[in-house]
Formats: sequence, C-alpha cells, structure tokens
Amino acid sequence: MNSAPLVASPVSKSDSDPVKSPAVQAMILASGRPMPLDSGAVLGPFTLAYETYGLLNDSKTNAILVCHALTGDQYAASAHPLTGRPGWWSTLIGPGKPVDTDRYFVICTNVIGGCMGSSGPRELNPATGQPWGLNFPVITIADMVRAQVLLLDALGIDKLFAVLGGSMGGMQALEWATSYPERVFAAIPIATAARHSSQNIAFHEVGRQAIMADPDWAAGSYHTAGRNPSRGLAVARMAAHVTYLSETALHRKFGRNLQDRIAVTYGFDADFQVESYLRHQGSTFVDRFDANSYLYITRAMDYFDLAAEHGGQLANAFASSPVRFLLVSFTSDWLFPTPESRAIVKALTAGSASVSFVEIETDKGHDAFLLDEPELFRIVKGFLDGCAEQYGLAARSTAQQADRKAARPRRGIRADLKLIADMVRPGSRALDVGSGDGSLLEHLVHDKDVDGRGLELDPDGVHLSLAHGLAVIQGDANTDLAEYADGAFDYVILSKTLQAMRDPRAVLEHLLRIGHHAVVSFENYGHWRTRLSLMLRGRSPIDRERAYRWWESYNIHPCTIADFLDLTKALDIEIEETVVLGPVGRVVKSVRPKSLANLFGEQAVFLLKRRRQTT
Amino acid sequence: MNSAPLVASPVSKSDSDPVKSPAVQAMILASGRPMPLDSGAVLGPFTLAYETYGLLNDSKTNAILVCHALTGDQYAASAHPLTGRPGWWSTLIGPGKPVDTDRYFVICTNVIGGCMGSSGPRELNPATGQPWGLNFPVITIADMVRAQVLLLDALGIDKLFAVLGGSMGGMQALEWATSYPERVFAAIPIATAARHSSQNIAFHEVGRQAIMADPDWAAGSYHTAGRNPSRGLAVARMAAHVTYLSETALHRKFGRNLQDRIAVTYGFDADFQVESYLRHQGSTFVDRFDANSYLYITRAMDYFDLAAEHGGQLANAFASSPVRFLLVSFTSDWLFPTPESRAIVKALTAGSASVSFVEIETDKGHDAFLLDEPELFRIVKGFLDGCAEQYGLAARSTAQQADRKAARPRRGIRADLKLIADMVRPGSRALDVGSGDGSLLEHLVHDKDVDGRGLELDPDGVHLSLAHGLAVIQGDANTDLAEYADGAFDYVILSKTLQAMRDPRAVLEHLLRIGHHAVVSFENYGHWRTRLSLMLRGRSPIDRERAYRWWESYNIHPCTIADFLDLTKALDIEIEETVVLGPVGRVVKSVRPKSLANLFGEQAVFLLKRRRQTT
Repeated sequence: MNSAPLVASPVSKSDSDPVKSPAVQAMILASGRPMPLDSGAVLGPFTLAYETYGLLNDSKTNAILVCHALTGDQYAASAHPLTGRPGWWSTLIGPGKPVDTDRYFVICTNVIGGCMGSSGPRELNPATGQPWGLNFPVITIADMVRAQVLLLDALGIDKLFAVLGGSMGGMQALEWATSYPERVFAAIPIATAARHSSQNIAFHEVGRQAIMADPDWAAGSYHTAGRNPSRGLAVARMAAHVTYLSETALHRKFGRNLQDRIAVTYGFDADFQVESYLRHQGSTFVDRFDANSYLYITRAMDYFDLAAEHGGQLANAFASSPVRFLLVSFTSDWLFPTPESRAIVKALTAGSASVSFVEIETDKGHDAFLLDEPELFRIVKGFLDGCAEQYGLAARSTAQQADRKAARPRRGIRADLKLIADMVRPGSRALDVGSGDGSLLEHLVHDKDVDGRGLELDPDGVHLSLAHGLAVIQGDANTDLAEYADGAFDYVILSKTLQAMRDPRAVLEHLLRIGHHAVVSFENYGHWRTRLSLMLRGRSPIDRERAYRWWESYNIHPCTIADFLDLTKALDIEIEETVVLGPVGRVVKSVRPKSLANLFGEQAVFLLKRRRQTT
Repeated sequence: MNSAPLVASPVSKSDSDPVKSPAVQAMILASGRPMPLDSGAVLGPFTLAYETYGLLNDSKTNAILVCHALTGDQYAASAHPLTGRPGWWSTLIGPGKPVDTDRYFVICTNVIGGCMGSSGPRELNPATGQPWGLNFPVITIADMVRAQVLLLDALGIDKLFAVLGGSMGGMQALEWATSYPERVFAAIPIATAARHSSQNIAFHEVGRQAIMADPDWAAGSYHTAGRNPSRGLAVARMAAHVTYLSETALHRKFGRNLQDRIAVTYGFDADFQVESYLRHQGSTFVDRFDANSYLYITRAMDYFDLAAEHGGQLANAFASSPVRFLLVSFTSDWLFPTPESRAIVKALTAGSASVSFVEIETDKGHDAFLLDEPELFRIVKGFLDGCAEQYGLAARSTAQQADRKAARPRRGIRADLKLIADMVRPGSRALDVGSGDGSLLEHLVHDKDVDGRGLELDPDGVHLSLAHGLAVIQGDANTDLAEYADGAFDYVILSKTLQAMRDPRAVLEHLLRIGHHAVVSFENYGHWRTRLSLMLRGRSPIDRERAYRWWESYNIHPCTIADFLDLTKALDIEIEETVVLGPVGRVVKSVRPKSLANLFGEQAVFLLKRRRQTT
C-alpha cells in the first residue's frame, strides 16, 4: 500500500455506548506527501477532514465510503457544527438504518476544494501562510477521489465494501468504481451522470458569474481583503436551488401563495412565498459556504467526463468491471435526469457488468436523494443486504440473521418456468426479460450457476429481486431492449410476455440480436377452447388464467402456435426445441410442433437460434 | 369609442412600393388621458411606441395585433434600430408569409414598462422631468393590454381579426380574448400559460436579485446617478437564457465542446463553448435593454393569473367565449411546458369555446416560437386561412383565391362515415374522437350545421383540419378524454378506434360521460371469415382492410359484435340504434343486432345513450 507519511488524528470524539450507538469520530488526515493533480499541479501537504460512524471489523471488510454533493460536507450523519442541523444523510445512515452503522463502518470526507476543514481555497497556503484564494489549484473529481484513496491507505482498508453518493457524490462513486475497481465491491451512484451536461455547465457558469460580478469577490482575494461576496454567492445559490427542485414540487410547496399578505403589493418585495423561500436559501447559504469553494467545486463537476477519461467510450470505463452497481434516478430530477443514469446502465450492460437500476417515481426533483424517500431507503437497503451476503459479511446479530431468513425464504419455481430453465445451459449468461419477482432468475443463478440479469417494469418486482441479490434493471421491454449490445448473452428469456408487447416482431428480433439463443413462452390462442369460443359463441375467448374480458386483456397481440411459427419464418429464425404443455400437464417435446399441438396445446415454450449471425 | 385625446403620430416612414411591399410605419401613440392601472395608480399622459406592417382595409377588419415577449419590442418585422438585426418575428410576418402583410394589417406595440419608446422606468416622468426609475408604477399584463386597447381606439379599429403572441405575448393574447372578447375574432397564444408558475416566478426572482445585488443598480436610480447595473443584468439574462433553451438543444449546439482550445485550462475562463455563448448573451443584452424594465416586465408576468382575475376558476375566464382559439406548445419547452397549454385547452373546452391545439415536436425549447419552425408556420397559416374565410376576409388577389381553392377542394365522405353522420342530429354539438383528416367533421359542420370539434393524435390530420377551418385538439384518446367536462356534447363519435384503445371500457365510459349520446363503429371480429381462420387454420385472422399480420395489428383489443354488446351491458348503456354493414354493402338497421349479424356483419355502427344520467 501507500508508504507516505499519513496521520489520521482524532479531532474530537463523542460516543455513548459504542455497541448500541457506535462512535462518531471526527478526524483529519494530514498527508505530508504531495499529491499530483490532474491539472499537473501538485498539492501537498494537504489535509482531509472526515467523519466515521460505526466500527471497522477485524478483517476491515465492512467499510462504506459515503461521498457528498456540491455543497455537502463530512457531516453526513452528525449535527452540522455551523448550522446545528442534523447530518445531510442522517435519515439514511445510522444504527438500524439502510446504511446500518451497527453493521458497517461508514466514512465520509469533506472533498478537497471544500471549506469544512479539507484543503481548499479558504485554507492557508502552507507556502505563504495566507489563504489560498485563486492560487489553490483547480481540482477534479478524480483528484477528490485520490485524496480519499490516501485516507483508506492510512486506515489500512484495502477494499471498500461499498461506495455511495448522490449528484457529485455519485460522480465520485463512479470514479472510484472505474479507477479503483479492485478496491470496491459495490457502487451506488445516485441521481448522477457520467459527464456534466451542457445545461448543467451553463447553470454553474451563471452561478460563478454571479459571484465574480460581486465587487466584494475582489478577484478571489476577499479573505485577505476582509470582504465577502455574499450577495453574489446568494444569487448563485438561488439560481442553483431552483434546479434542485421540480416544478411540481415548487407548485405543491408554494404554488402562487403570497408571503404573509393577502394581496400583491405591486412592488419588488417578496410577495410570493417562493421568493421569500429562495431569498432565505441564498442568505443562509453564505453563512456556511465559501464563495471560492463554490467556484472550485462547480468547476470540478463541469470537468467530469468519464468517457473522455477512457478514450471517448463510456463502455470502456466499465469494461470487465468486477464491481456490482446499483444506479438510482428520480423521475422529476431534471438536473441529472434519468437518461443520464440510463446511459451509464447501457455502458455497464455493454461491458457485461453486474448492474441494477431503479427509477424512483417522485415529484421532489434532484433533491429527492437527500430527502426522506422510503423507496430509496428500501432499494439501498435491499441491495446492500444482497451484496453483503455475496461478500460474506455476516449479519451483526443472530436476531438480524433470523429476520433476514424470515424475510427471504428460498422460493420455489413454477412448472412452466422450470421448463424454460431446463433449456438454459448451466454456467451460461442469461437475460430474463420481464423477470417479475426474480424467481426464475434466482433458480438459474443459484441452481444452474448462470450469470443472470433481469429486466422488469414493475418496481416491486425489481425491489424483491435486489433484496435477493439479483442484478435487475427497471425498464420496459417495449423500449429498453435497444440498450443491450449485440450478442451480450447466451440466452434471452421472454416468458408469457410476447403477446403483451406493442411490437412483438421487433421484440423477437431484439431477443435474437442480444442473445445467441432465445427462450420464448406464451399461451396458445389456437387452443380448441379458444377456437370454439369464437366459432360457436361469436366471442373473443376469456383469458383462462386471469379471467380477463376482451376489453381488459393484457394480451394485445394474441397469437397461436401457428401464428408464432409464421413469425419465426418471417424472421428466418431457427427453432431448436419446442415444448408444448397439453391438458393435465402433458408435455410434448419436439423440434417443430405439429398442427395437433396448436389445437390441444395450452402453452408453448420455444428455444430459438439466429439462423444467420448478425454482423 | 374612447373620446380621450389620442394622437397617433408617425415617427418615421420607410416604404418602397406600398402594394408589393406594404409600408412599415413606426408610430407613437401619445395619450393625454391618464390610464388607471391594476395597482390603483394612474399612468398619464403616456406614450406607446408601435409599428405597423401592411395596409388596413376599408372596413378595418383585417388587423392582427402581434404581442411581444419579455425582452422583445415593437420591431417584430423590421430591423432593430440598436442591434441592426432582423425583427424578432420577421420569419413569420411579411408579404406571403404565414402572417401575410399582403392580406393583413399587422400592429406590434412596445409594452408599457418597456424600454423602446413606450412609457417605462427609463422614460422621463413628465411630473419631474427625471427618469421614472422605481417611481414608475408597477404594471400588469392587463395594463399592457389596456394601453393597446387605447391604440386600437385611436386607429378606429373596433375588432381585431386576430391577436397572437408567444410567452408573455401569449399572456397578452389571453388577456385580450378574455377581457375584450367582443373585440377579438381569433386568438393564438403560443408557448404560454394562464398563470406564471412557481418555478417561473423563482427564476424571475433570481434575475431580479442579480440586478439588485449590483451596487451600480443604485436602488433603481442608476440613470440619474450616471451608472448602469450591467453586470447584474448580464447575470440575470444568462440565468434566463438557459431556461429558454432545452438540454437537448444545448447538447446539440454545444455539448461539452471547448471554446478555441484543445484542452481544458484548469481555470475559470470560458473553457466550454456554452460558457462563452452565455457570456456573450449576457454582455450583448445589456446594450439593448434597461435593467429596471427587466424588473417591471418580469413582475408583470409573475402577477399574471387569469383564473384569479375570474373568481379562481380558469373556465370562468372563457365562459361562452365567442373567440376562436389556437393554442400551440412545444415538446421541449420546460419554461411554459405543454401541461400549461393543456390547462387552457381544458378550461376552454369546459366553456364550450372553439379551441384548436397543437403540440409541436421540437428540441428547441421555449425559444422555438421565435425560431424558424416550419410546423409553427404551417399551423398558424392554416388556422388564419380558416378563420379568414369564416370572418369573410377575402383573399387579396384572385391568384390567392385560386391557390386556395386548389389546396382545399371540398372533400367527399366515406360510406361508413356517412352512416355515422346520419345518426347525428342537425344543429347539435358533436365531438369526433380520432377525427383523422377532419372529413367527417367537415361534413357535419357544413352539411348538418353541427357545432363540431375534433380530437386527433396525428399532427398531419390536425393541420389539415385547421386549414379547413375546423376546431381540432391534438391529443390521445387513451389519456385526454378525461379533460372534457361531463355532458359537454350532444354526440361523441368514435369511428373504428375502440379496438385500438389501451382500455376500451374506460374510453366508452368517457364517451358517454362527455356526450349525451355516443356513436361507435368498429370492424366485427365475429365475422365468419375471422372465425374460420382461427377454427380451421389455427391462425389469428389478417386485418382485411390493411392486411396487417397478428404482430402488427393496431387492433389490440379486437372484439365481435357480441363482445361489444357484453360491454354495453356491463356498463348499463342503452342501445338506441344499430347499423350492421354486411357483404356487398348490404345495410341492416335494428335496435339490437341478432346473432346472424355477428356472423355476417363486416362493420357495425352503434348509437348509444346513457341509461342513467351521470350526476
């Protein structure tokens, strides 16, 4: 590991019962060794302020690094020394909470460039004894992570169990997972992007220009000059704050409500509550944040571009990544909108990495990751639980183990899914499209050693799968199959879903583009009962399993076995095997089903292969 | 009309051939009579700077008022005196252009509060001889329109043929149509809203705070003090400018491209093109705009709330409106997003007004209304043409008349649509859901004197309908029927669309909620050919009309006549009349079809009625 002189020294320590409520430790890492930066400059010696929560286990395998966003700091789960308010992620991190400090050792650092104790433009330049101001070197997200790596070295932690963060914290998590993949087991980048978008650079530039337009900024040397560009910084914060929310959230919170008045005043006071709120956000921010730090940290975000770091291809960044990823985005986040997360998911998928993804429905905007969002908590907890089991992290107490067992009994598998599973070669790579609660996937992974992935629309199914340690992407087979690379899997499975697709032909084409084989099952619309219903009763048949009427059927493109064969012919698909389930569970296996199968078969399962290789 | 002393005096006049290129006239209205404002203050005497294009006809019926947005002015279609650039809507307004100055007399005023000659904070206060500064009274959108009304009085124009505008100009158009409905034949509010949203107030407040934070603003008296808050105004403009574009447009235009450099500089210069662009937008804006005007006009927009002006109900604003409306929104406009326009459409629909609506697919964001957007041009031209015919405005030349006739021959009507039309009582109110190219609607309106409206998903169908003078809303029957009020129509028609609906039951319920009667037609899936196809061939039948295969059929919920009767029974709907089209055009009429009809009928048309009144 690193042999540089590193000193991790306690700043203060407050704990009650270290077992029931693990110690909160506020520490500073003082690195005597200069650290080279992306800019070519060298920073050193430097300091890194951090807090830890919980206890590091003997094997040092239970460490989770939490990374903060633009205006956050190391006070993730303890009261902020300046504002007195609870830590910014104290809802997520703590004993018994999703990031459980009874189980994990949680570390949170103030990024370099920040203003809460780590080296940054407000701190003294050791060379001059004066505040750095604009002489502080411009830093990048990678530089922030480099400093964190040195801290881990000092703490003797070889590998993080997990790294997680939202927004700029998510950028750090991505940087960790791609630059130090061997030192991270699992990564949870939330509400983030692999590169800062043009629009986000534009908003940052507005904020920087607001600060620099303030005469009190004094070309960055306001500390020396005894001034403070508080008006400019407040405007920057106000502009940024609007982007953290959503129109719906603002409408719900404030609408056009007036502030302590019954009519507008026909003037420029804060008539509206939203104006008053924004002004408050601006004026309180300047009490806790440094204007130059704002410049430096926004710049680091602007410069972040993971693809550019890896030859222009985002997929390269994740090639053969051993890290398990969970990406989370929020529907109303327009600063880091879902397509940004999906781009990362796509790149990870192309690189065959293990990735789960959930888009959470909320109107809270970008800020949702900081708020009390039960869905986020449930997902993070489920994913961490699943990963902990795979990483061999024991639950802390036997009570927890019992809880866990009760919550996650090993599940059985339906007979028709068993037929599908039988067609999949052990040890292969498989994608289950419409993976539901993950029971087929779990069977494939645990009993057939398959490297399995899922795609599922229903959030509950995704959550359940994550909690079982499965890698599942929340998405719609109608639209999201295009995200998968050619030949990424040995098998792609579509179970009782084809008829519910808007474009069954396109879906089938995708299955055989993505997989070398496809396994497709459906209910046979050519069954004699269906035929008789239409022939004699003049009525569309009622779905037997679910008793749906014609107007509520999810099968919007019903097909018979003969119909399906027509489609495979039209697409020049080779049928390798067919299994038809007849009455009283009778199973007929063949390569190509006969017309009797179309009359008596209730369900059919096909193993398919591309006749010609897609180039 | 108004008897106050009004003088409309020419400022300058530049024309070549007044027939081939109608005169551009720059004028000032000087009103000697004080004008009462919403705030209770009185403004007067005041001036209103305006331009006109084209010639007013003898009956003074061809006037179109064009209203500008926040930072626009009266130079809509002539070069700007400060920037030298073409008028902000010169692509839309001119000889042969969509707003054709060979045909219409176009007026554009600088709003009061502005800074291009109309009374505003930069102008001299007649009482003191000093610039108004913050002593100028705070004005509203309604005040802006009041001043325009006085101008029309001075010009002797009783009624505008049309009023149109985008963004704040759209607010003025809405104000005109609701406060002076008898003086407006048609209104075209584009990319606007009936009230300024919380988020938009927030962005305006950021801009105002940026201006006010600039020490050179000098509490608004910078003109007197010989200063100019240009840094603050530039920041305000930069923040606003980001909101006028879309993330996609910024990405397309700039992405993360660097400005005249091959690598980032690790500093705070404009490394990225988007930064350079924004700085340019800010710095050029201060040369043409006044900071106090920016405060006043943003405030007027913030105060705009049409519902609040009408007892809290937006629908009240439009009750019994005789005005013909065309609303237009843009998919990527997040400042005035489509739901804002839809809220207006909904209120207009509830008030039984004549309203057309189109959402234009574009990535250009809010600014799209100012850009060379062919779709917008086509829609505005089509709508104006249709309205001109209804208003009795003759085309200017016989060549134009011939053009028009060639472009719009009177269309025939399909036999099955004729059957539907026969079920609709002359002189009634009808909504055609899925109105296609509008041919049924046109037949109902012209031949049966029906007050008809359409709802159509396909933009081409909507455009064609508008050009035929029909009122059609672009929308999706799967989702948008909920927008219509109970009992708003005598008849709601759904022709060959039920089976394509995601939820046929919900759609049918909506039809009979919105209309006292519904007329529903569909192809009968119970026809003997369909039955035999499944019975003997074991295949889903191929759509006869379009030869679709099972995997491409748009009929995602195929139904037989018997199936449909089941649904009417489940919903307790009364069948008033049934027409079944058999082979070789044979038509069988009855109240309730027999089972033979289900076997031999190719198509069926039902006239339905609610059995119980919805309360």
